[in-house]
Amino acid sequence: MGTAGKVIKCKAAVLWEPNTPFSIEEIEVAPPKAKEVRIKILATGICRTDDHVIKGVMVSNFPVIMGHEGAGVVESIGDGVTTVKPGDKVIPLFLPQCRECNACLNPDGNLCIKIDLTGRGVLDDGTSRFTCKGKTVYNFAGTSTFTEYTVVDEFAVAKIDDAAPLEKVCLIGCGFSTGYGAAIKTGKTNSLNSSPPCPDLVRQHGWKRTWQMINSREVTPGSTCAVFGLGGVGLSVIMGCKLAGASRIIGIDLNKGKFEKAMAVGATECISPKDFTKPINEVLSEMTGNNVSFSFEVIGRLDTMVDALASCHMNYGTSVVVGAPPSAKMLTCNPMLLFTGRTWKGCIFGGWKSRDDVPKIVTDFLARKFDLDQLITHSLPFTKIQEGFELLYSGQSIRTVLTF
Amino acid sequence: MGTAGKVIKCKAAVLWEPNTPFSIEEIEVAPPKAKEVRIKILATGICRTDDHVIKGVMVSNFPVIMGHEGAGVVESIGDGVTTVKPGDKVIPLFLPQCRECNACLNPDGNLCIKIDLTGRGVLDDGTSRFTCKGKTVYNFAGTSTFTEYTVVDEFAVAKIDDAAPLEKVCLIGCGFSTGYGAAIKTGKTNSLNSSPPCPDLVRQHGWKRTWQMINSREVTPGSTCAVFGLGGVGLSVIMGCKLAGASRIIGIDLNKGKFEKAMAVGATECISPKDFTKPINEVLSEMTGNNVSFSFEVIGRLDTMVDALASCHMNYGTSVVVGAPPSAKMLTCNPMLLFTGRTWKGCIFGGWKSRDDVPKIVTDFLARKFDLDQLITHSLPFTKIQEGFELLYSGQSIRTVLTF
Repeated sequence: MGTAGKVIKCKAAVLWEPNTPFSIEEIEVAPPKAKEVRIKILATGICRTDDHVIKGVMVSNFPVIMGHEGAGVVESIGDGVTTVKPGDKVIPLFLPQCRECNACLNPDGNLCIKIDLTGRGVLDDGTSRFTCKGKTVYNFAGTSTFTEYTVVDEFAVAKIDDAAPLEKVCLIGCGFSTGYGAAIKTGKTNSLNSSPPCPDLVRQHGWKRTWQMINSREVTPGSTCAVFGLGGVGLSVIMGCKLAGASRIIGIDLNKGKFEKAMAVGATECISPKDFTKPINEVLSEMTGNNVSFSFEVIGRLDTMVDALASCHMNYGTSVVVGAPPSAKMLTCNPMLLFTGRTWKGCIFGGWKSRDDVPKIVTDFLARKFDLDQLITHSLPFTKIQEGFELLYSGQSIRTVLTF
Repeated sequence: MGTAGKVIKCKAAVLWEPNTPFSIEEIEVAPPKAKEVRIKILATGICRTDDHVIKGVMVSNFPVIMGHEGAGVVESIGDGVTTVKPGDKVIPLFLPQCRECNACLNPDGNLCIKIDLTGRGVLDDGTSRFTCKGKTVYNFAGTSTFTEYTVVDEFAVAKIDDAAPLEKVCLIGCGFSTGYGAAIKTGKTNSLNSSPPCPDLVRQHGWKRTWQMINSREVTPGSTCAVFGLGGVGLSVIMGCKLAGASRIIGIDLNKGKFEKAMAVGATECISPKDFTKPINEVLSEMTGNNVSFSFEVIGRLDTMVDALASCHMNYGTSVVVGAPPSAKMLTCNPMLLFTGRTWKGCIFGGWKSRDDVPKIVTDFLARKFDLDQLITHSLPFTKIQEGFELLYSGQSIRTVLTF
C-alpha cells in the first residue's frame, strides 16, 4: 500500500487521564519496526475491561489508546514478519502467543509470557508507535484498537479467513472466546477419557470422532451446567455448553431482565438467588438431583466464586473461574469443598492458544456453529465511542461494536 | 466353613472410650445378613486416621472396633452375595462402591454415597454385628479391621488375586492407594489428550498404548512434580509420579530425616523450607525454571495447601489436595492464583473407584510395578497394637502392619 514505511495520520480515541471522557484526536502512527504489524482497524467491541482502565481499577500509563477486541486488515509489515501480509484480515491478540515460553510450549498452557499484565503500555521493544500533539501515547494490552491504525507485535496478531465479517468476529478477540472457551476448552471434564465410557464411545462414534471429542475437551454431552452471571461472557459460556451437548444449562443472575436472552442462546432454565431463602448451591442441588457437573463464575465476585464451587458435585464437579477477581482481595472457602474431589480452575481467554485457535474459532463462526448476533446489541460509528460506554454503564448493551 | 451361619467368638482390639488404650477383648461376631460378608482378617495397617478417632478429632460412636486398612479371607457370605465367596482373598473398603449413586455412575466420581462420613458406625442396615460383654460394639468406616473377624457390606469389599501377600497388600486398602492414585489418577494433566501432542503420541506409541495412556490419566511423562509431605502417603505419591514418568520429583518436608526414604522411592531431590528465606513457591520456581506442572499437598495443613497451589505453574499447573484438612477451618488464598489458569483439586482414596480398581492395583503390585516394602517399616502381632500406635506417635514408623 502507498502508506507502507510512512507515518500515518489518523483518528484515535485518546484517554488523557483516568476518569475523563475519550477525546477523538488526530494521532501519528509510526511504521512497524522489525517483527511488528500495522493494522487498519475496521471494527472493535467495547469490553468492561476497557472501563477498568478508565476507572483506574487497572493500572495503565497515560495518555493511552485503549481497546482490545478489534478486527482489521494488515496495512504493512516490518522486517522479518512471515505470518501475515498486507491485505490479510486479522484479529489483534491481547493474549499473545510467542511459541517459545513455558506456557506456549506446554500443551495446556496459553498465558504467554509476552502478555502485558502490568500495564507497561508498550510493544515488545519497549516503545509505542503512537504520538499525539508531540506526546507519546501508550498502548493498551498490546493491541490498542480504539484507533484507525494500530501497530502490534507479530506474536500478537492472528490471520483469519478472508470471508469473515469484521464487525462481528471482532468479538472473538476477547469476550466471546473467553466465555466460549471456558465451556468448550477449560471446563473440560475427564469423563470422555476415563475408562468406563471409552469403549462405548469408540463403538458408537469410531476412533476418529472419539479422538476429536477428546481433543476438543468439551463439557460432557448430557451433563448439567450452571452459569453464574449472564452478561456477554456468561452468554458465550452458555453457547459453549450448548454446543458441547450439555442437556441442562441453568443460568443464574440477580437481574431477571437477562433471562430471555440467556434462554435464546441456550439456557434451559434461569433462576435468581433472590427468589430463594436457601443458599444457591442447595437450590441447584435440589433442582438437579445433586448432579451439576460444571459451574462457571462469570461475574468476578469472590462470594459467587465460592458459591459456584459449592454448587458443582462434591466429588466429580468442576468449577471454572471466568470472571476477573477484584485485585488485592482474598478468597476464603471451606477446604472440604476441594478435599472431597471437586476441581477448581481458572482460565484467561478461555484457555485458547490465541494465534493457533482464533483463526479456527472464526472458521467455526463462518460454519455457523454459533451466532455472534445474539451478543451484539448495538452498533455505532467509532467517533461515538463515548455513547458506547454510556450504553455499557446503563446496562442497556451486551456488546456495542464500533465501526470505522 | 464350619463357622458359617454361627456366631464366632474371637479377639478384637476394642476402644471403649476416646483417649484410652486399646483393650484386647473376646467379642462375638454375628453371621452376615443378606448382602453382607464375614471376613477373617489376616493383616491390617495402622493409619493416622485411626488415631483421629482415638484423639476424638473424628466423630465416632463408642465402644468401637477401628482399623480400615486390612486384608483377609472370606469366611462366609449372606444371602444374595454374588461378587465374593468363602475362601476368596479380599480387601475391605472404607470407601464403598455401590454402583448406583451419582458418584458411582459418573466416570469421574468415586465418593460413593454409602461411605460412612458421619461416624454412624453401623452397616447399611443400621446395625453392627459386634458384641462384647453383652454390649453392642460399633463399626468404624464400614470396615473394622482390628479384629480377627469382621462383617462388611458387599459393596465394601473387593476380591483380590489369590497370590497376593495379605501382610503387604493391606496397604492398598488405604494409604498406598490414596497417594498413588493422587499422582496416577487424580493429578492427571490434560496434556496427553490435548491437540498438539496427540498425533505424535499416536505415531510413537500406536493407538492402543496412547489410549491406555489417556485412560490411565497419568502425571505427564517428563513433567516436574513437587510433593509436600513425605510420610507414607507422600511416599506413595512419589511412587506414582515416578511410575507415570515424571522426570523430576521434588520432595518437601521440614524433617530431613525423611529425605533418604523419599529418594529411595523415586524423589530426584528433597528440600526443607527451613533452609530458605524465600517463600517455598519462589524457591521451587527458581529451581525448575518456573515449570512445576503438578504439586501435591500430603500433610493436611491449610498453609501448605496454598503453598502447593502457588508452587505449580500459574497457567497450566495442577495442585492436588491429598492431606485431610483440619475440620471447621477456612482456607484463604489469593484468587489470582486460580484465575490465571491453575487447577486445584482434591481426591478421596486417590480418586479410585474402590471395587473396580483395588483388584487392579493388587495385580499391578504382583507385577512389581511398585514396591510396598518401602512403606512397611514395622510388623507386629495383632495383640501388640498399642505398641504399633506408639511407633506412629514417635514418628519411628511409616507403616506398621499387624498380623493375626
